[in-house]
Amino acid sequence: MTPSGESSPAVEPVTGESSAATAPHPSIEAVHASDLRSAWRVLSRGERLEAFRLVPRRRAESFFLRLSSADKSDLLLSFPSEEHRSWVRLLAPDDAADVIQAAPHKRRAHLIGQLDTATRNEVQGLLAYAEDEAGGIMNPRYPRVRPDMKVDEAIAYLRKQTRTRSLSIHYIYVLDSEQHLKGVVSFRELIAASSRSFVRDVMKTEVVAADEEMDQEAIAKIITSHRWVAVPVVDADRRMKGVVTVDDIVDVVQEEATEDIQKMGGTAALDEPYLEIGIWKMMRKRGVWLAALFVGEMLTASAMGFFEKEIAQAVVLALFIPLIISSGGNSGSQATTLIIRAMALGEVRLRDWWRVARRELGAGLVLGSILGVIGFMRIVIWQPFTHLYGEHFLLVALVVALSLLGVVTWGTLTGSLLPFALRRLGFDPASASAPFVATLVDVAGILIYFSLAAILLAGKLL
Amino acid sequence: MTPSGESSPAVEPVTGESSAATAPHPSIEAVHASDLRSAWRVLSRGERLEAFRLVPRRRAESFFLRLSSADKSDLLLSFPSEEHRSWVRLLAPDDAADVIQAAPHKRRAHLIGQLDTATRNEVQGLLAYAEDEAGGIMNPRYPRVRPDMKVDEAIAYLRKQTRTRSLSIHYIYVLDSEQHLKGVVSFRELIAASSRSFVRDVMKTEVVAADEEMDQEAIAKIITSHRWVAVPVVDADRRMKGVVTVDDIVDVVQEEATEDIQKMGGTAALDEPYLEIGIWKMMRKRGVWLAALFVGEMLTASAMGFFEKEIAQAVVLALFIPLIISSGGNSGSQATTLIIRAMALGEVRLRDWWRVARRELGAGLVLGSILGVIGFMRIVIWQPFTHLYGEHFLLVALVVALSLLGVVTWGTLTGSLLPFALRRLGFDPASASAPFVATLVDVAGILIYFSLAAILLAGKLL
Repeated sequence: MTPSGESSPAVEPVTGESSAATAPHPSIEAVHASDLRSAWRVLSRGERLEAFRLVPRRRAESFFLRLSSADKSDLLLSFPSEEHRSWVRLLAPDDAADVIQAAPHKRRAHLIGQLDTATRNEVQGLLAYAEDEAGGIMNPRYPRVRPDMKVDEAIAYLRKQTRTRSLSIHYIYVLDSEQHLKGVVSFRELIAASSRSFVRDVMKTEVVAADEEMDQEAIAKIITSHRWVAVPVVDADRRMKGVVTVDDIVDVVQEEATEDIQKMGGTAALDEPYLEIGIWKMMRKRGVWLAALFVGEMLTASAMGFFEKEIAQAVVLALFIPLIISSGGNSGSQATTLIIRAMALGEVRLRDWWRVARRELGAGLVLGSILGVIGFMRIVIWQPFTHLYGEHFLLVALVVALSLLGVVTWGTLTGSLLPFALRRLGFDPASASAPFVATLVDVAGILIYFSLAAILLAGKLL
Repeated sequence: MTPSGESSPAVEPVTGESSAATAPHPSIEAVHASDLRSAWRVLSRGERLEAFRLVPRRRAESFFLRLSSADKSDLLLSFPSEEHRSWVRLLAPDDAADVIQAAPHKRRAHLIGQLDTATRNEVQGLLAYAEDEAGGIMNPRYPRVRPDMKVDEAIAYLRKQTRTRSLSIHYIYVLDSEQHLKGVVSFRELIAASSRSFVRDVMKTEVVAADEEMDQEAIAKIITSHRWVAVPVVDADRRMKGVVTVDDIVDVVQEEATEDIQKMGGTAALDEPYLEIGIWKMMRKRGVWLAALFVGEMLTASAMGFFEKEIAQAVVLALFIPLIISSGGNSGSQATTLIIRAMALGEVRLRDWWRVARRELGAGLVLGSILGVIGFMRIVIWQPFTHLYGEHFLLVALVVALSLLGVVTWGTLTGSLLPFALRRLGFDPASASAPFVATLVDVAGILIYFSLAAILLAGKLL
């Protein structure tokens, strides 16, 4: 989406709070656009169209260019069809492809038909890529020169290119006559070079390029880890196909984080903003996971049934069940969250599992001991006031403390290793959500607690 | 950190998997650098230094520039001091400031002393800003021209600027003689303009700028929502101080997501990569939250104590306690996660709380009904085989089902509204972690369950 960003750079009508403070002369139209922006998400489709019509054309165009692809497509299709062409043609090819992808199936051919022939070919090329591949987020227009041009010629040539088409002009790519990528030169270097040297003298020839089928997450990693502004995309023969720029990557990074967070919260990724997704669609995404977790959690009822006799003999044991299983769940949730995020950032890899396991075993033992001591103290200090825990309260306290140690250690280990197991099996590690881990750990917690009770309280309470 | 990105653009020695496939001629040195990169995180400080010494200087420089600020500072300080100057001077001012900030307090003055006078002044200026303010992440070097220059003159002048200093050259800023920001022109527009027009004819004058004290999250929002490549930073008099570029924002977006995710997992934000943070530091960040949640969870033991008589009379009730409270926790975890993320992305604002509450009330009732029905079926179907639930199993199943409905509705509402309450009170909504919500909901779950049991089973089991 760079081109529209390029053509309306840090230069904009007054929008939102920030600019109100800093732009000295907000005009009346500008206020309209900013009002529309802040009201946008609460308006119905009809209201959006109506309000949008009140914004003067130039403002309306910048406003339109900044909408999400889904909103662009929605708004566009609510215009009368004779206006479609002028709006669709505002878009750079990668944006146009996104907007067309967001449109209902049967309207797509119509929208493609509104484009000029050159852009149409590019957009059709882009639509052939999966949405989350390099090819799907790249811009097929980029500044190009030949290695045997003089620097002055190259600059003049670029001036002509940028005059006729919207380009993302971070780096200049040097191609031979068959479009093979031979080198790259940054704009800074090109204009800083002596006018009469050749492009091939200032270009760098070792170019890291992304494969056109590379996943967008992999590209995001290349760009963020190298801290680049753009990366070229090539086919198997190293013919240049387009560029992916860092502003596209910001979106990818945000989207990936959102997906991970939603999965970690124990729901399927929504793929749409919370307030915009249909209530039944959201219900399905949450309900499936919730029901699956519930079915898993039923094992706790079976485990408890197994100890029904012990509970009947020593009801005092039942009092601490929620405390013990939730401590396992909480420590597991901490561990799984830290590991999933560290994996997503590339800080922890599959082969690090053994280091993580040792680290988390230590963490679990320490954290479990802390909770064990707090739990023990609580029972011992409470007892004189309440007499809730009976004559064997010291033994009960010991059972609770040791169970906490066991359950927290187990929860921590399970929570930290589950993401590795999921990734190893080809699943998304982020599915090792806090609720998922808690469910796994709850049954273990019950088993640990009642087994310890059976041993330590034998002949006393049991 | 743009400048180093600019001067070594999509042109790099072979690094990682991606490039191995795409760069046709990996040299021997390049393999060294890439080996070092992949081994980096498992090496001790001494090993890092030793391995780094084996990489030829030019490769070593690119490698160094790509390290995190903390690693840069660490490596730098392990060199003999006579080498510090040449390494520190490789850095752009905003990078140098970050590296110096990452160094131990008593080495900072020494490092600042290694800079040339001009850069030293800039770096000291940057160090005066808080790390997460606009001033803290901006680059104080940016391409600037005067409004009364001709386009040709401006281009020639920029060529001179970029030759002597490393610049992030996305947009050209037009300043008057007192450094007031008068306008901006994109590089594309400048080179596409007629050579003899004036800069003031092609510049745009309505410029959205960030205030120097603006928080980095707010800047990230400006840049991502407008899909810009850079935003200028100005002081209260609208004098230009620097630019923040989108590649800095990618880091901000990643960091913010990481912090939120860690808080949502029920731990304080680590601020360091998982494998690099000291084990005791991590333990403190996890232990404090875990202990706080544990103390809160102790209320469940008190609540259970309140119903000790009922449990003794009808042990069958105890069997479903884990199932019921965990269902409340899971549904609360889903709701809080979705809302926290939607808030972070600006999709949901404080004033939307009532819309969210209605939506989540509906969601809770539907999801609770689904789990209630599953729970009811499970007991009724299981009973003929196990006879675990006694003669009143239908009543028990009804109590369980209605409790699930109540607990899931309550969990969903609590989970969705807690982030609003926290934000309203000035706390980070991400602190409404899954474990925090689960702890809040557990007590309510016990109360709902036993109250319903007391009513429905009165005269039968109780």
